[in-house]
Amino acid sequence: MNTPSPVVNAGMVADGLHHGHVHMVLKAAALGELVVGVLTDEAVESYKRKPIMSFEERSFVVANLKGVSRVVPQPTLDYVPNILTYRPRYLVHGDDWNRPGSPQFETRRRALEALAAVGGELVETGYTPGISTTDYYKRIVERFGK
Amino acid sequence: MNTPSPVVNAGMVADGLHHGHVHMVLKAAALGELVVGVLTDEAVESYKRKPIMSFEERSFVVANLKGVSRVVPQPTLDYVPNILTYRPRYLVHGDDWNRPGSPQFETRRRALEALAAVGGELVETGYTPGISTTDYYKRIVERFGK
Repeated sequence: MNTPSPVVNAGMVADGLHHGHVHMVLKAAALGELVVGVLTDEAVESYKRKPIMSFEERSFVVANLKGVSRVVPQPTLDYVPNILTYRPRYLVHGDDWNRPGSPQFETRRRALEALAAVGGELVETGYTPGISTTDYYKRIVERFGK
Repeated sequence: MNTPSPVVNAGMVADGLHHGHVHMVLKAAALGELVVGVLTDEAVESYKRKPIMSFEERSFVVANLKGVSRVVPQPTLDYVPNILTYRPRYLVHGDDWNRPGSPQFETRRRALEALAAVGGELVETGYTPGISTTDYYKRIVERFGK
């Protein structure tokens, strides 16, 4: 009898995909069937800015990464609604939110509570050194924005 | 007996991956085993500019797209060396180079000659409307470059 793969959840904006996203997807996919919550345009705007690429464009790219089983909308920056819906065995997130004072510290606390309720656990990964979407945009602006 | 899949070749810079690249990869992969030639940093600089992402970073992202069997370096803007090495049944390229006056019109003519020598053919695809790397960078510069 085959044991079904555990469901793994991760959330991402993926507005300007780079190798850091791909590293995270590969780590998450190694744990099971990866369901990526792509933040909706409204979710991104709620805390950041209007995305460069639309939700449909961003979802299409993420859905075509090796290791991604499924893309679903993540309608808020908060992970709780998708945790309660998809009941993941693992939530994978960068470890940068685990600092008191981080704007996402409270989001992390809420995610841990929701994970406990569904029997899941949080897996935190280091960020890929030397790259973030902000760095990436900075490189482009420095090169082309003059 | 299984017939081996035909080899399909496409070249790309993939510096700032977007949904247009993914559409092209899916079209190419539908024809056979897709070997993507990622242009080396030197190849890009020879006609364009220094890429934002390194060859290794760009190759890693492309290698992790669904439908890509293999990534190889494309050391020149010219397709001839990789055509003679990988002997593809199909070379897939955007149809934008098929205009007299296009800077790549001569590159296309040379690719056609090399394809004829290895028994391959050129498959030209339309570009995804509304997106190119140039448009993408423009959107970022307009949003963040002020």
